[in-house]
Amino acid sequence: MFKVPDHQVAGHRASQGVLGPLIDDSGRFYKPLQSDERGSKEMVFYTGFSSNKEIPNHIRKFFPVYYGTQLIEASDGSGLLPHLVLEDIVSSHTNPSIMDVKIGARTWYPQASEDYITKCVLKDRATTSLSLGFRISGLQVYGSEQSGYWKPNKKRVQGFTADDVRLILRKFVSSNPSDDFGTEPDRAFAAAVYGGSTGILAQLLTLKAWFEDQTFYHFYSCSVLILYEKEPILNGKRPCATVKLVDFAHVLDGQGVIDHNFLGGLCSLIKFISEILNNLPDISPKNSEKD
Amino acid sequence: MFKVPDHQVAGHRASQGVLGPLIDDSGRFYKPLQSDERGSKEMVFYTGFSSNKEIPNHIRKFFPVYYGTQLIEASDGSGLLPHLVLEDIVSSHTNPSIMDVKIGARTWYPQASEDYITKCVLKDRATTSLSLGFRISGLQVYGSEQSGYWKPNKKRVQGFTADDVRLILRKFVSSNPSDDFGTEPDRAFAAAVYGGSTGILAQLLTLKAWFEDQTFYHFYSCSVLILYEKEPILNGKRPCATVKLVDFAHVLDGQGVIDHNFLGGLCSLIKFISEILNNLPDISPKNSEKD
Repeated sequence: MFKVPDHQVAGHRASQGVLGPLIDDSGRFYKPLQSDERGSKEMVFYTGFSSNKEIPNHIRKFFPVYYGTQLIEASDGSGLLPHLVLEDIVSSHTNPSIMDVKIGARTWYPQASEDYITKCVLKDRATTSLSLGFRISGLQVYGSEQSGYWKPNKKRVQGFTADDVRLILRKFVSSNPSDDFGTEPDRAFAAAVYGGSTGILAQLLTLKAWFEDQTFYHFYSCSVLILYEKEPILNGKRPCATVKLVDFAHVLDGQGVIDHNFLGGLCSLIKFISEILNNLPDISPKNSEKD
Repeated sequence: MFKVPDHQVAGHRASQGVLGPLIDDSGRFYKPLQSDERGSKEMVFYTGFSSNKEIPNHIRKFFPVYYGTQLIEASDGSGLLPHLVLEDIVSSHTNPSIMDVKIGARTWYPQASEDYITKCVLKDRATTSLSLGFRISGLQVYGSEQSGYWKPNKKRVQGFTADDVRLILRKFVSSNPSDDFGTEPDRAFAAAVYGGSTGILAQLLTLKAWFEDQTFYHFYSCSVLILYEKEPILNGKRPCATVKLVDFAHVLDGQGVIDHNFLGGLCSLIKFISEILNNLPDISPKNSEKD
């Protein structure tokens, strides 16, 4: 009944001896509740968020639906363990291209332990978090039935520089993502995926407007997940470009202050994507821009 | 010819034995070029900024005019020293209420020395920089000819908590700023100073729009200076509410990335000021809002 997700691009992947998320056939995603405070914090967030009546519907749709918790067999074989039961964002997709972007120059908060802070500071400085306000945590780009997915390994992803990020954001919407670093990505799907009134950029701008105002939550170490399907674009249809927020193990009460750390990083990501759209070659197929 | 500025609210104040800025009668402000790299970095910024043709005029007006450098007698009596010659922002004002707000959750940058970073991190955490994305570095509020200025001392300012900041931003536009912490500030000038199409909020929003796009500069440890005159408001005129950016000793090349650290803090300040405007008591004089 439960299986390991096919399309996980970041975080621990479930396997014998390794605890990780599971999915079922009904479109639900089971995330093990870690025994440390992270698990309980994420549950507290989902519970509070689900019942928070001040979240507008056009914002709520950026968050996975929460179905409560359930005791299921853990993926590492350690027996029954409580899991968060969430909407499986990916299950409705056939061949999803996915990017996990961890938002915020700072992934730590002052209330955390000094050990945790030190670890985060080192990683924020070693990756692009500090310089760009975000870092790419993982991605896969669908090529074709023959070539399958282009999916750089974890070590490569962790070494991404600012220039790599600029390139990866172009590769993500290109038909030649796996080409060597010398070849310019063709950005064939950039207009269809990033652009348009329902594209990724428009959705990120909607999120931004909310973050300029909301003072309920501060999202540390939270990711924006960007997904799309290539097939519909090739058939001249909409690419089902989707933005979701995931990973709420480090959400704090906003205490009446906006999440300036998340907002700054989000604005930086928006600028990178805007620049790609503003610099498209004339030959790129822009049909699906008119939606 | 040179004298110590009357209305300095933050930074070292010039006196016998202490190096600080000077002004003259022609409306110029002389800032000593520190012998360490800070001085030269600020000069490099002003020189580059002055000749940067991609700065729109409606943004340039937020920066003090730069007149080059000049050798003048240092305020500490140490002899001739090169000074930056700048527009004296305050000189055109008679009884200015002034607030210096240092923007950004982070006042340091990775290229700085570890000693400098450690010092900044401690101060960012000890003040409201980390939590709010900005900290108040100093202020004075004009009361009347009899009462003069209300100007909390440096030690008190450095101890401001998030709640203090919320209160101070209300006191800054109140006719009873110096009242004890028990009395609610009347916010008598809030609509005139913060509100309206030429008020502080409108100016901060103009700056914000630029920061969402500009990738030339990253402004660390830079301040937004907020000024206004009380007299015109009492006479039903515009309060000459002014926003200026000051202190560019730690400006870095943006390298194609927006200044997400400054932008996040600026958005947080904007939210605080918006909340004051959205919660004004009905009795407050709103005449000058119609401009």
